[in-house]
Amino acid sequence: MALVVQKFGGTSVGTIERIQHVARWALDSQARGNDIVLVVSAMSGETNRLVELAKQIHPMPDSHEYDLLIASGEQVAVGLVTLAINTEAEKRGSLKKGQLAAKGLLGYQVGIFTDNIFSKARIQGIDTTRLKSLISNQIIPVIAGFQGVDSESNITTLGRGGSDTSAVAIAAALKADDCEIYTDVDGVYTTDPRLCREARKMSRISYEEMMELASLGAKVLQIRSVELAAKYRLPLHVRSSFNPVEGTRVVSQELLGGQMEQVVVAGVAADGAQVKLTLQNITDGPGVVAQIFGALSRASIVVDVIVQDIPSNGMLTISFTVGRSDHLKARQVLDELKAKTFSSLRIAEESDLAKVSVVGVGMQHHPGVASKMFQLLADADINIKLITTSEIKISCLIAAEKTKQAVECLHRGFDLNRAD
Amino acid sequence: MALVVQKFGGTSVGTIERIQHVARWALDSQARGNDIVLVVSAMSGETNRLVELAKQIHPMPDSHEYDLLIASGEQVAVGLVTLAINTEAEKRGSLKKGQLAAKGLLGYQVGIFTDNIFSKARIQGIDTTRLKSLISNQIIPVIAGFQGVDSESNITTLGRGGSDTSAVAIAAALKADDCEIYTDVDGVYTTDPRLCREARKMSRISYEEMMELASLGAKVLQIRSVELAAKYRLPLHVRSSFNPVEGTRVVSQELLGGQMEQVVVAGVAADGAQVKLTLQNITDGPGVVAQIFGALSRASIVVDVIVQDIPSNGMLTISFTVGRSDHLKARQVLDELKAKTFSSLRIAEESDLAKVSVVGVGMQHHPGVASKMFQLLADADINIKLITTSEIKISCLIAAEKTKQAVECLHRGFDLNRAD
Repeated sequence: MALVVQKFGGTSVGTIERIQHVARWALDSQARGNDIVLVVSAMSGETNRLVELAKQIHPMPDSHEYDLLIASGEQVAVGLVTLAINTEAEKRGSLKKGQLAAKGLLGYQVGIFTDNIFSKARIQGIDTTRLKSLISNQIIPVIAGFQGVDSESNITTLGRGGSDTSAVAIAAALKADDCEIYTDVDGVYTTDPRLCREARKMSRISYEEMMELASLGAKVLQIRSVELAAKYRLPLHVRSSFNPVEGTRVVSQELLGGQMEQVVVAGVAADGAQVKLTLQNITDGPGVVAQIFGALSRASIVVDVIVQDIPSNGMLTISFTVGRSDHLKARQVLDELKAKTFSSLRIAEESDLAKVSVVGVGMQHHPGVASKMFQLLADADINIKLITTSEIKISCLIAAEKTKQAVECLHRGFDLNRAD
Repeated sequence: MALVVQKFGGTSVGTIERIQHVARWALDSQARGNDIVLVVSAMSGETNRLVELAKQIHPMPDSHEYDLLIASGEQVAVGLVTLAINTEAEKRGSLKKGQLAAKGLLGYQVGIFTDNIFSKARIQGIDTTRLKSLISNQIIPVIAGFQGVDSESNITTLGRGGSDTSAVAIAAALKADDCEIYTDVDGVYTTDPRLCREARKMSRISYEEMMELASLGAKVLQIRSVELAAKYRLPLHVRSSFNPVEGTRVVSQELLGGQMEQVVVAGVAADGAQVKLTLQNITDGPGVVAQIFGALSRASIVVDVIVQDIPSNGMLTISFTVGRSDHLKARQVLDELKAKTFSSLRIAEESDLAKVSVVGVGMQHHPGVASKMFQLLADADINIKLITTSEIKISCLIAAEKTKQAVECLHRGFDLNRAD
C-alpha cells in the first residue's frame, strides 16, 4: 500500500471530460490499493482570464486582493474534480450511503501556511492532521494547488506553476511514497519538441539537471518544486494525463548510476521571454551593486544573468536579465533608484531576447563543453550577447528570433537525438 | 457620520467598467463623511457558468464541493472591486504610502458563520471584530456576499440572491444606519415592467409587502434579506447602480403613514417557474401529511402553495407547488416515499405554470379584494388552477402563457398605474 500524491495541471482539468477522466484515474489508482491525495491547478486558460481582468484595472497588480482573485481558479477546479470523483464513485456503487469518496480542500482549509509575499509566497508549513484523517477514512483529499494562507488568514499564491510546489510540499509533509505530476506532455524531453523535432523523452533525470532545465525555461515543472523534492529526496514522476505510458522520473544523481559517465549534456533549454537591462554611468564604490540588487530583490524581482564590466574611470556598467513579466516592475525600481540616489545613471533596455542553455551533470567531468557550444552557435551564425555558466549548465543570451535554430543545432551537436 | 452598507449585485459588477464605477461611487460616498462597507455578488453570468459546469458532471449537485465551487464567483468580484478601489484611491492621491483604501474579505475571513445546509445555508452569526477594526482605520471592507463558513470550516452558500441577505445581516450586526441595495433596476415597481408597461416605481414600501413581493417572484430582493431587515428594523434602500436617482425605501409599516389608508393593493407579482405536483390515492391517517412534507423539508425543498382536498373513501388528494429548480429533487423524494411507504400513491405533475399575486397591507382593512381579483381574471378569460391567500396577499396559479395578460389586467384593475 503506497501513499501517492497526484498533481493535475491546467490542461489535465481543462474540460469537464478531462475532469471526469481524472476522477476515474484517481479512483482506479485507489482501487489498486493505494492511498491517493490529489492536488489540482486551475482549468487551463482560467488563471490568464483572471489576470487579464485584473490588468484592466491596474497594470501591475501584486497585492493581497490580486492573490484572492486568482486563487479562485483552483477553487473552481477543486469543486469540479471533487464533484466528479463523488459522482463516479456513486456510479460504481463502491460507496455506502452518505459516505464520501473525495473531499475538496482549499489552502486555508488544509492549513498550507505561507509567508505574506503576495503572488510569490513561500510555504512555511503544512498541517497534515485533516489530510491524515481523510486518508485513513479512504477519502481522497482534493487540494487546491498554488495557494496558501498567511498568518492573518489572507489568501496567498505561490507564483506561476506553484501547484507543482504545492504537490511536492504536501507529498513531503505526508512522507508520500511517490509524487506524480500529470501534465500535457508525457515527460521531460531533451529539449522543447515544438522547437526541435528530434527531441527525445528521457526516462530519468537528476534533480540537479531538472532544476537547471526548469530554471531555463523548460516549463514542465516549477523549479521550486524540484528544489523541494531534492531536499526531501522525494521521487517525482512527470507523466501525461492523456496517455498512461511511463513518463520521466526525477531522482537523485546516485540513482542515475552508470549513465552519468556517458551522457555529457542531458538537455537543451530555451526561454524566450527575456529582457536585458544595462545600467551605465554608475559611480563605483562599496555597496553600490548590493544597493541596486537589494532594491530589486525587495520588489521580489528575480534577476537572472548578471554581467559586470571592469570599472573604467571609476564608472561601472552592469547588465542583467529579468523575465518579461518582471520588466515593468524592474524598470520602476530602477527609475526610483535614479531619482533618489544615482542621478547620473543611464538605463538601456533590450527586449526580444532568448536564453538557450545546455544542461548536464556529466559536463562537470568533461572539459570543452562551453567551447563546443560557442562553436556550434557560431557555425549557425548566431550572435551571443551574454554568457553565464554553472557547474552543470551553460547559458547564452541570443536574439529571440534565432531560438529554434539555436536549439536545433545544439541538440544535434551534442548528440541528444540518440537514444539514452 | 453614518455607517452605510452598500451591496452591489451581479450586473453592477458585470464588467470592469462597472467595477470601476462602483469603486468611484464607494469612495465618493466615503468622501461625503460616511463609513462604507461593501458587499458584492459574482459578476453577472458567472454563477450560471459555474452551475452549468457542475451540472455537466451531476444533474443535482447540492453538496459541500458545489458550494465551494460556486462561491468562487464572489471571490473574483471581491478581488476586482478591492483592486479597483485601491487603484482609484491611489489615483486620487488620497492615501498615504502603504495605506490601503479597501480590503477584500471572504466569508470565512470575516467570520460569517452559517449552518451546514449546503446551497441554502442560514447565517447564525457574524464576527464584527475585523470589520470594525478596518472601519475605524478608514479602510472599506469589501465582503463576498452569498457565502459563509460552517463550524468545520467548509464554505457554504446562502442560495440564489443570498448576497442581499449577507448585506442585511452584516448591516444588522454592525448596527448600520442604512443598507443600500444596488441593482440593475432603479427601485421596486408596482409590477414587473417587462410584463406591464404601466408599471410604476414606488418611493416606499413596507417590509411586509416587500416580503410578499419577493416571495412571489419579484426578484429585486431575496426574501430572507427582507425578513432579516424587518426583524432588525433596518431601513433598506433599493436603487440603481446605473442611475443616481433615489430608489425605493423599504421601511416599517408605521413609517408609511397615511398612505396605508389609501392604497389597497401595492403591487402585482408574477413567478413563472412553478410546477404543480398532485398526490392521489393516499390512505389517510394521523401523521400522513406530516410524513410527506417532512421528507420534502429534510431535502431542503421549499414547498409553496398547498391545497388538500377533503378525503373521500379514506383516500387523500394533496396538491402543492415547488419552484422549477426543486422539481427533480422533489420528484425523487416522492418516488422514494412511494417505494418505501405509500405504495398506492399516484403522482401527477403539471409544469409551465405561473403564480400571479396581488399584495398590499391595505387589503387587511378592505374586504372584496379577492373577489375583485377573481373577477378581473375571469373577465380576461384566464383560468385559475389554485388559490392561496394571506392577510396581505392573494395568489392564483395560472397557465404560464397567460402571465403577461394576467399582470396587465390586475395592474390596471387595481389602479396601480396611477401615481402614489
